[in-house]
Amino acid sequence: MSQTVQGTRVERDSMGEMQVPTDAYYGASTQRAVLNFPISDLRFPRTFIRALGQIKQAAAKVNGELGHIDSSIAEAIIQASQEVIDGKLDDHFVLDIFQTGSGTSTNMNANEVIANRASEILGGSRGSRKVHPNDHVNFGQSSNDVIPSAIHLSALLSIEQQLIPALLELQQTLSTKAEEFMPVIKTGRTHLQDATPIRLGQEFDGYAGQIERAIIRLNHAQSELSELALGGTAVGTGVNTDPDFSSRVCARLSQINGIDVTETGNHFQAQSTLDSIVEASGVLNTIAVGLMKIANDVRWLGSGPRAGIGELELPAVQPGSSIMPGKVNPVIAESVCMVCAQVIGNHATITVAGQSGNFEINVMMPVAAYNILQSISLLAAVARNFSRQCIKELKATTRGPEMVERGLAICTSLAPVIGYDAAADISKHAHKTGRTVREVAREKTSLSEEELERILNPESMTKPGLEGGPAGG
Amino acid sequence: MSQTVQGTRVERDSMGEMQVPTDAYYGASTQRAVLNFPISDLRFPRTFIRALGQIKQAAAKVNGELGHIDSSIAEAIIQASQEVIDGKLDDHFVLDIFQTGSGTSTNMNANEVIANRASEILGGSRGSRKVHPNDHVNFGQSSNDVIPSAIHLSALLSIEQQLIPALLELQQTLSTKAEEFMPVIKTGRTHLQDATPIRLGQEFDGYAGQIERAIIRLNHAQSELSELALGGTAVGTGVNTDPDFSSRVCARLSQINGIDVTETGNHFQAQSTLDSIVEASGVLNTIAVGLMKIANDVRWLGSGPRAGIGELELPAVQPGSSIMPGKVNPVIAESVCMVCAQVIGNHATITVAGQSGNFEINVMMPVAAYNILQSISLLAAVARNFSRQCIKELKATTRGPEMVERGLAICTSLAPVIGYDAAADISKHAHKTGRTVREVAREKTSLSEEELERILNPESMTKPGLEGGPAGG
Amino acid sequence: MSQTVQGTRVERDSMGEMQVPTDAYYGASTQRAVLNFPISDLRFPRTFIRALGQIKQAAAKVNGELGHIDSSIAEAIIQASQEVIDGKLDDHFVLDIFQTGSGTSTNMNANEVIANRASEILGGSRGSRKVHPNDHVNFGQSSNDVIPSAIHLSALLSIEQQLIPALLELQQTLSTKAEEFMPVIKTGRTHLQDATPIRLGQEFDGYAGQIERAIIRLNHAQSELSELALGGTAVGTGVNTDPDFSSRVCARLSQINGIDVTETGNHFQAQSTLDSIVEASGVLNTIAVGLMKIANDVRWLGSGPRAGIGELELPAVQPGSSIMPGKVNPVIAESVCMVCAQVIGNHATITVAGQSGNFEINVMMPVAAYNILQSISLLAAVARNFSRQCIKELKATTRGPEMVERGLAICTSLAPVIGYDAAADISKHAHKTGRTVREVAREKTSLSEEELERILNPESMTKPGLEGGPAGG
Amino acid sequence: MSQTVQGTRVERDSMGEMQVPTDAYYGASTQRAVLNFPISDLRFPRTFIRALGQIKQAAAKVNGELGHIDSSIAEAIIQASQEVIDGKLDDHFVLDIFQTGSGTSTNMNANEVIANRASEILGGSRGSRKVHPNDHVNFGQSSNDVIPSAIHLSALLSIEQQLIPALLELQQTLSTKAEEFMPVIKTGRTHLQDATPIRLGQEFDGYAGQIERAIIRLNHAQSELSELALGGTAVGTGVNTDPDFSSRVCARLSQINGIDVTETGNHFQAQSTLDSIVEASGVLNTIAVGLMKIANDVRWLGSGPRAGIGELELPAVQPGSSIMPGKVNPVIAESVCMVCAQVIGNHATITVAGQSGNFEINVMMPVAAYNILQSISLLAAVARNFSRQCIKELKATTRGPEMVERGLAICTSLAPVIGYDAAADISKHAHKTGRTVREVAREKTSLSEEELERILNPESMTKPGLEGGPAGG
Repeated sequence: MSQTVQGTRVERDSMGEMQVPTDAYYGASTQRAVLNFPISDLRFPRTFIRALGQIKQAAAKVNGELGHIDSSIAEAIIQASQEVIDGKLDDHFVLDIFQTGSGTSTNMNANEVIANRASEILGGSRGSRKVHPNDHVNFGQSSNDVIPSAIHLSALLSIEQQLIPALLELQQTLSTKAEEFMPVIKTGRTHLQDATPIRLGQEFDGYAGQIERAIIRLNHAQSELSELALGGTAVGTGVNTDPDFSSRVCARLSQINGIDVTETGNHFQAQSTLDSIVEASGVLNTIAVGLMKIANDVRWLGSGPRAGIGELELPAVQPGSSIMPGKVNPVIAESVCMVCAQVIGNHATITVAGQSGNFEINVMMPVAAYNILQSISLLAAVARNFSRQCIKELKATTRGPEMVERGLAICTSLAPVIGYDAAADISKHAHKTGRTVREVAREKTSLSEEELERILNPESMTKPGLEGGPAGG
Repeated sequence: MSQTVQGTRVERDSMGEMQVPTDAYYGASTQRAVLNFPISDLRFPRTFIRALGQIKQAAAKVNGELGHIDSSIAEAIIQASQEVIDGKLDDHFVLDIFQTGSGTSTNMNANEVIANRASEILGGSRGSRKVHPNDHVNFGQSSNDVIPSAIHLSALLSIEQQLIPALLELQQTLSTKAEEFMPVIKTGRTHLQDATPIRLGQEFDGYAGQIERAIIRLNHAQSELSELALGGTAVGTGVNTDPDFSSRVCARLSQINGIDVTETGNHFQAQSTLDSIVEASGVLNTIAVGLMKIANDVRWLGSGPRAGIGELELPAVQPGSSIMPGKVNPVIAESVCMVCAQVIGNHATITVAGQSGNFEINVMMPVAAYNILQSISLLAAVARNFSRQCIKELKATTRGPEMVERGLAICTSLAPVIGYDAAADISKHAHKTGRTVREVAREKTSLSEEELERILNPESMTKPGLEGGPAGG
Repeated sequence: MSQTVQGTRVERDSMGEMQVPTDAYYGASTQRAVLNFPISDLRFPRTFIRALGQIKQAAAKVNGELGHIDSSIAEAIIQASQEVIDGKLDDHFVLDIFQTGSGTSTNMNANEVIANRASEILGGSRGSRKVHPNDHVNFGQSSNDVIPSAIHLSALLSIEQQLIPALLELQQTLSTKAEEFMPVIKTGRTHLQDATPIRLGQEFDGYAGQIERAIIRLNHAQSELSELALGGTAVGTGVNTDPDFSSRVCARLSQINGIDVTETGNHFQAQSTLDSIVEASGVLNTIAVGLMKIANDVRWLGSGPRAGIGELELPAVQPGSSIMPGKVNPVIAESVCMVCAQVIGNHATITVAGQSGNFEINVMMPVAAYNILQSISLLAAVARNFSRQCIKELKATTRGPEMVERGLAICTSLAPVIGYDAAADISKHAHKTGRTVREVAREKTSLSEEELERILNPESMTKPGLEGGPAGG
Repeated sequence: MSQTVQGTRVERDSMGEMQVPTDAYYGASTQRAVLNFPISDLRFPRTFIRALGQIKQAAAKVNGELGHIDSSIAEAIIQASQEVIDGKLDDHFVLDIFQTGSGTSTNMNANEVIANRASEILGGSRGSRKVHPNDHVNFGQSSNDVIPSAIHLSALLSIEQQLIPALLELQQTLSTKAEEFMPVIKTGRTHLQDATPIRLGQEFDGYAGQIERAIIRLNHAQSELSELALGGTAVGTGVNTDPDFSSRVCARLSQINGIDVTETGNHFQAQSTLDSIVEASGVLNTIAVGLMKIANDVRWLGSGPRAGIGELELPAVQPGSSIMPGKVNPVIAESVCMVCAQVIGNHATITVAGQSGNFEINVMMPVAAYNILQSISLLAAVARNFSRQCIKELKATTRGPEMVERGLAICTSLAPVIGYDAAADISKHAHKTGRTVREVAREKTSLSEEELERILNPESMTKPGLEGGPAGG
């Protein structure tokens, strides 16, 4: 046996001995990976470690019930896994995201931490292998089914517990604002050019509608993620696992989390591809694109205060400039946009990762896990913050309504009455002379004042209908 | 009136007169756009023009029924639109994809072509404005609701009529091959390293499972696309349209196409964002990623013929090299991969496009349309071709089965019996000495020949189960 | 020999006979590829076919000079290649982009067209193999060095002949406008919020500076592309080619094109990777991003005409709306933005393509070629159009200058005199009361009117300097 | 004054009072940003904080020299900045990446930390404003020139000090291996199919050539990054700064870092765009794509050990599987690929960020900074690790050379002698009969044994030349 270095103990794996820090729960395989991957400071997030702990716990329970491992060992693993679930052993998950592409190192990290902690629970010492990381903790499993399952489970739960609630809050805040802003009639804008009138509340209704659809899209993502690879073991065939293992584990994971996960109907695709994760990331990409539209609109509607559009007043949350005193910027909205840029880039990473499968495995699992979980977490945090620190505090100014009567596009409702071409003449004349459409129409058409009043009514223009009757008639 | 240039006639729009080619059905607005956008040779595809024709036709029918346009005019528009639908007027759709971001130019192109053709039908000349492009053909519509609706409709129909049938064919071919290859037991591979045995048929089952899921994802995309913006007109409020217009038009579009499209429940999001298109493109991105996995596996399994993996024989469809005589390459699979690269890039374009909305409109409609329709069309063509000219003709060689007994990973099924560490010793010893796992296990364990026969049975390893009973027991 | 179908003749390649259209110059290998790849309507552009013709021509010349092929055959190939260069045989280049990943099919298409045409020149019939596509036209070459060389050469020439001149024109137009707009002092904007004054001409100077740098970046791309793979043949070793072949061919290509291309110093990287093309595409991606900034600024500065920023008046090139009469939109700028989105997506495709190399070849050559050449061509066309139909016609309105005195950020130049915090107080007070900074400063500071005049001078704020002396002093 | 909460002190900024932790060096503005941006755990990395400290230090020195701030204050700032540079105050840089898009919050964080620390140095208390964050530390600067300058400077230095040395090491290791492997003649592979022979050393020479070019590309990136925005202040005009400020600061930054940075020749583009950063990221994207090729080749060449290609033996750095005993995987190479996927995604994020500029600023500075610095750092770490723990330890097996004689593509060198078509016949016959090309050629040609020996010499095929003389002759 090799000499023990101060502050370390000797652990063993199938390759031989390694020195690990005395107080580490992990063992030789993890230690090898620590040395193999000195790449970055990116780590699997809490949500992933928690899901991994849940899988190990459910596996022990099921393997115990099926008689594949001793019940005392099963019990110890269950207890140790609970500590992993609760975050008590997070300091012992020490591995870089940029490791083996299957995430085997992190699976072994979990196996070793749980085995050593379970050994302790049973009165053994760390390194005693009283509970064996492979033969007991990993029984009936392979990294190749555990890691994709942990990604699915953690992403599914993060969507359920973080992102959907945050989006629901944002949707609610937008809807409340839509109602509040419904009386505010303003100039619509297409191509950034003045268009027919719209209610500020209708714009916010549009934003709320985007978020409503975002949540429906997330349901699709969740359905994708609810299929777990567990039960396929090494290559999808299920070698070395009990035929009942996966369905029982899935039942237990569903029950403790209050969601539905099931054994995949096709193990071969489940562990050789990241298709479901690419698809779920596509949903997050859409949400990012949608949120960016909302945040940009808010920024622009709040532009000014004097030389901008200025239809909204944003909350002044911090000084805007280190050099320009008194300046206030739409910083919360900007942080939203930057998160969206990150999520869009993460989707590109995941799309590359999805292309990196050959035969029975995809070897970009950890980087896919990191990116999708980061995207979910960022979108959740920023949606909530946007709702609370920006949307909720928005105020409509008087600028929007003030400009409506001066708008040229209100000539649109003249078109069904006098025809497009005649209406265009009025608009152009008004533009050239700086007058209003109403003033010019009074002059250039035979319409009575009452007719003009009815036709050029901005309020009517904010709903479907033909104020002047058919043009072609 | 201006001098008419030889070979041209004068057309007029709200900006004045323009010379257009005598035999062109389009008018002044289209001609302006021809001059404004001399950018590329990219054009809206047939499927888009067809959908646009259907919308114009349904609109005329509904506007006629509702009494907003004369029934004779409505009839003429319906007839002219049918010619657009049938592709008879394709030569008159002359505009570049890189035009105004709303696609107004192409909407006006349709309006002008149909108006002029309808005028002719009613006995007028081209340019007579007997049927007016704006007042009649475009009645109750705006580019801002027509163009996104045409994108949705054409994408939805292309998915339904082209992509899903092609994928179903591919799935069926893969499933047939899976059955054919099910007796072929071979070495599984994870991390490109020999792993436990798998059936070649199981691998193909995995591919079929990917395509099966691709189709489910397309159903999600179709559901996104079935919501039409029609009825919102200029800014989503529905100004200048009949409140019943959109639902009636949608009913008609559903009926003639045998699908379901409905008026959006939220017009403001429908025309100010491309969210649904970004989402649908995300689905196509996933399918591309998935197809690339399959095509790559096929390429690699067919690598060789002598210094490669060589488990599959691909059909020899063309000489592989201009310099190396007799070489045959997996060219069909390569064309699949290149399509996938294009679709992934198109998704990036659409994602950028989705970010380019402000207020009441997104101004990257045409480029989004072009890219999503190209992605659908490319995936459909290549899936069908891959199925017919490659997958269907694949043959399993004897190489896969020959290597199984020499595989080191079959020691995996020893692990539940003798423990992971002891099994690893056997594997390493076999590796070092060039012997088989069976030979070494005979020597290094006390297992009987019958036990070894049962445990080291490659066939058993291709299904779930524990051949040797629990290890920890 | 097989029966000849009407309208076809029999051609032969190493796989046997094929029927090809009687008037086609291509032969059996091309015909196989026609049948193998019925995927899309995307074709290699003129610039690529031209470059391919130049390579074949130069190769024949060099091989003739070196005595590897008969001088009469060499002469005939040179003449036939000239017809390819001149575009006279474009109709005979019939293959889909989505073909074999090496582009071998297109290389063989060129070999066959030139061989048949050269055979004719020498008095033989098409299909006579008097001049052999492989043994003569392709002598000393392989698709694996020809195709990457043709991509490099065509991209390099397109940049030189199309893109750089277009960008120079745009830069010049922007610079001219910068000079014209230099007297226009307006409100600067950061975070869309009013900031210290800037000259409209300075903004245009910034745009010109972006394009100036774009051209420098293109020089870098050209330097990347000037390294040709020719001479490596099948796998980079140069088997079957004369050691002097590549350098002589490169010399000739340089001479006829008036540029510098050289034989790569490292053949193995040159034909197994697309690194240089990915790098060049990265440059195009940067240019797209930069152009989008300019186009967006122009769109926003022209927003209005009444409820927008309205500091620029854009040329009215076409009616803006099918429903809103008289509306004019920034359509040229929008077409620029859409091109940029396409180029950014093309870069994503090329980045995927770049990852698809294994061992001695990358098998996404055609799709990379298509995308990079499209990006160059689109950027060139749109830069020129943007310059001519938009930038050149821009007019400054009076709106910008009108808002300057009302700007709050002009308090910035008070800060070095009275301190940031006191200046912020003045800004906020002005904001709250709707007054100007000057008015409030008069009240709240002890500065004399002359001092205020000097410090709050918008003109001074548009250049470096401290009008009030150091604050900390 | 407000009540002080336990453990906090009161700080003030232009918006009023804030409670900050007693021992924090930062002030009110930073504290506001802490509350405004509870988004993620992403922070500016050390390299960025260091560059920011250098800029603040150089600014104080120059402002002191120019007489704009008191020399005692300048001295205190210089000393405090040194502590920032040295990392002693890292705990006080507490802000999220997802903050204001200009990075103003982080600039103010630096200003406040340095001001408070400098106040202490001068005998004042934290919060005393003895040294003022805006009036002194930020004198002559704006976030809008400081932050882009800090991104440029930190990226430039990270490339110089981390990435280039790591790539040089990798290049050197690859070159050494190329030399070592030069005697190993093996089957080349194109399209994954056996091609003409190549030396394993030539393949490694190709990899070394890729890295050599990567470094040249980085020089281009560095040249882009060497232009600093400093001197433009708020909007590029340079308001409130000394005309000599920037050039002097740049000179100092150049001197202390041993590199060249200069004041930009065009301030307007420098702070309103991220063009240079997008360009530099494009270079990193190319390097990622290139590295992925190398890592993939190494993985595939090491595939097996029995059912793969097996031409290389990779170092066994850790157990490969939790379920398959004795398995060893190419984990180091996989970690390289995952880093590359991340860098490619980061490039997508930066490309989105680059599009988010309007008028005088881009508002995605922090997310661009984070991503480009992460890309540089990841590539550096993984290049070094790949070199040391994988490439350096590679061993060639005997498998490659063993397969050469059995290769069919060696018939290529027969083609110049007997013609492509005849050579193809030999290859096909050999394929069908399982014989070697030499055996079949002996039978089917009239070439003597000596001629065959000379022509079919694998060694000759690994260099340019025509062993059999011209075919067409």
